[in-house]
Amino acid sequence: MNEIKKVEKDEKLIVNICGEIFNRKEAKISVFDRGFLYGDSVYEVARTYNGIPFLLQEHLDRLWHSASLLNLSINYTQDEIVHQVNRALAELGEENAYIRIIITRGEEGILSLDPTFAKSNNLVIIVKDQTPNPKSWYQDGVKVILAKTQRTNRMAVDPNIKSGNYLNSVLAIMEARKEGVYDAIMLNVLGNITEGSHSNIWMAKGKNLVTPPLTAGILEGITRKMLIQLAKGNNIQVDQKDITPNELINADEVFFTSTTREIVPVTQIDNSPIGLGQPGNMTKELIKIYSKFIHQQTVDQSGNG
Amino acid sequence: MNEIKKVEKDEKLIVNICGEIFNRKEAKISVFDRGFLYGDSVYEVARTYNGIPFLLQEHLDRLWHSASLLNLSINYTQDEIVHQVNRALAELGEENAYIRIIITRGEEGILSLDPTFAKSNNLVIIVKDQTPNPKSWYQDGVKVILAKTQRTNRMAVDPNIKSGNYLNSVLAIMEARKEGVYDAIMLNVLGNITEGSHSNIWMAKGKNLVTPPLTAGILEGITRKMLIQLAKGNNIQVDQKDITPNELINADEVFFTSTTREIVPVTQIDNSPIGLGQPGNMTKELIKIYSKFIHQQTVDQSGNG
Repeated sequence: MNEIKKVEKDEKLIVNICGEIFNRKEAKISVFDRGFLYGDSVYEVARTYNGIPFLLQEHLDRLWHSASLLNLSINYTQDEIVHQVNRALAELGEENAYIRIIITRGEEGILSLDPTFAKSNNLVIIVKDQTPNPKSWYQDGVKVILAKTQRTNRMAVDPNIKSGNYLNSVLAIMEARKEGVYDAIMLNVLGNITEGSHSNIWMAKGKNLVTPPLTAGILEGITRKMLIQLAKGNNIQVDQKDITPNELINADEVFFTSTTREIVPVTQIDNSPIGLGQPGNMTKELIKIYSKFIHQQTVDQSGNG
Repeated sequence: MNEIKKVEKDEKLIVNICGEIFNRKEAKISVFDRGFLYGDSVYEVARTYNGIPFLLQEHLDRLWHSASLLNLSINYTQDEIVHQVNRALAELGEENAYIRIIITRGEEGILSLDPTFAKSNNLVIIVKDQTPNPKSWYQDGVKVILAKTQRTNRMAVDPNIKSGNYLNSVLAIMEARKEGVYDAIMLNVLGNITEGSHSNIWMAKGKNLVTPPLTAGILEGITRKMLIQLAKGNNIQVDQKDITPNELINADEVFFTSTTREIVPVTQIDNSPIGLGQPGNMTKELIKIYSKFIHQQTVDQSGNG
C-alpha cells in the first residue's frame, strides 16, 4: 500500500475571488456560477519554489488554450491574473506555494445549458502551502493499476482542455484507492495508454523515452513539455507515440510527470514489477536534470543561487 | 432560426442550501465544494404542475442511482429532501415551478482529486417559476443538427449519471447556437444516435416508435420511461434499439422528450425535412396522451380535476 498524503487540518490557505481576498471559510461562489452547475470552467495548478512562481507563463498560456477550446472568453488580461496571483501569494507568505487558478464562464442569466446567457467570468485563485510530497514516492516508486474507467474520448471533451469536468479522473482515482495503490492509468477507446488521473505517463526502453502523443487523448502537461525539451538537450531521444498496455508493463522504467509531483517513478503496474521493481537509472537521471532546471528557473533568478 | 427562450431579468427564485433559505444573490457555496472544483455532484430537474411535484419519486430514485454510479454517498434521506423541496416551493409560491436538486460530494478536506478527503454532502435546491416554453416549438416543431461533438463514452463517464460534468452537452448546444437551431444530436463512438444536449430522442416509422437503448450511452430520461409505458398502454410498439443518422433523417417523425419541455417535435435535421416538415400525427397523439397523464398525476390528485 502506498503512502497517501496526509490531510492537514489547519492548512494555511488564501483565496482571491475576482480581486477580493478571503480566508477558507469565507471563500464562496454563487450556486448559479456555471462552474458549479456544469463544471463549465477552466483551471491551472502552478507552484512557486523559493517564492518564485515556476513557469507561470506556460500555465497562463495553457489556461487560455483550454478556454479557447471551450469557446469561453476571458475578460481578464494575463497581467491582471498575475497581479491577483501575486496579491494572494503575498498574503499567504509561503516560500513554496501551490497556486490554483480557476476561471468560470460566469454566472447564469437563466438556468440553461446554453452559454449564451452566461454573465462575465468569475476568477478564483487558491494559494496554499505546498507541503512536501512523501519521500517514499521518489525513493521506492509507486504502484499503479490500469483503470477500467476509459479516458474521455477527444471527440467528446478533449482531455487537453483542463476544465472543471473531472469526474473521469475521479472515477479512475477511486479505482486506485480501492486497490490501495497510488493511481490508475486510463486507456483510450483504441486500448492505448493515455495518462494517470492527474499526471502524464512515460516509459524508458533501452536508451529511449516514449510518452503518448496528444492524439491519444491526454492533457499536454507542462512538466511533460519541459522534460521533452530537457531530454533532447541531454541527448536522450523522446518519441511521442502510442503505447499499448503490454509495452508499458514490459518497459525498463515507467514514471509520471506533473507540476506538483514533478517526476514520480512507477515500479509496479497491476502487480507486475517494472524492470527491477525499483526506480531505474534513466528516471533518476531525469529527476536530477529536472531539479537542476527548477533551480535555474527559480533559485538562481532570485539571486540566492 | 428557432425561437429561443427569453431571459427574464427579475426571475422569481428561491434557493435552499442544506436547509437554509436564500434569495438569488445570497445563494453561495464554498469554492472548496467538489461540485465547483470537479463537477463532482449529481442533480435532477423536476417540476410542479398546479402546485404538485410531478414524478418527484422517480427523480429522487434517479438521483440516488446517479450517486451510486459515482460511489457518492448521500447523507440525506429522500424524505428530508422532499421536505426541503417543499419548504423552498412554499417560499416561492408558484403553481408551476421548476425544481433543481443538486447534491455534491461535499467540501474538500485538502485540494485533491481523491474523494477520500471529501466532507459531507452539500444539498442545493433551486426553485423558480416554470415559465411556459415557446408555443412555436410544439406547433411548428424545431430544427436540429447532428453534432460534431461525440457523446461521452459510457466507459469514461456514463451519460446515465446525471452529474455536474456537463461540458459535453455544453459543447453540443454551442454547435446548435452557432447554426441558429434548437439543439444538436450527438452520436456515440460507433456512429449511432444517442440524444440531444438535454433531451432524449425518438423516431416514428410506420406505426412503431424507436428510441436508442441505454447501451447507446444516454440518460434514462424520466419522460422517456413514462412514455414507453404510456405508448405500450395505447398499443403503440416501442423498440429500444440503435438508430443510425440515416434512419433518423429518413424517419416519418422525430421528437424529443424532457421533463421541462415534455414532447417537442423535430421537423428538420441538418437541413433535411423530417416527413412532411411539420409535427406528425403520431407525435401529436403522444402529446395528447402525455398531457392526459400529467393531468391525472397532478390536477386530478389535487382535487381540482
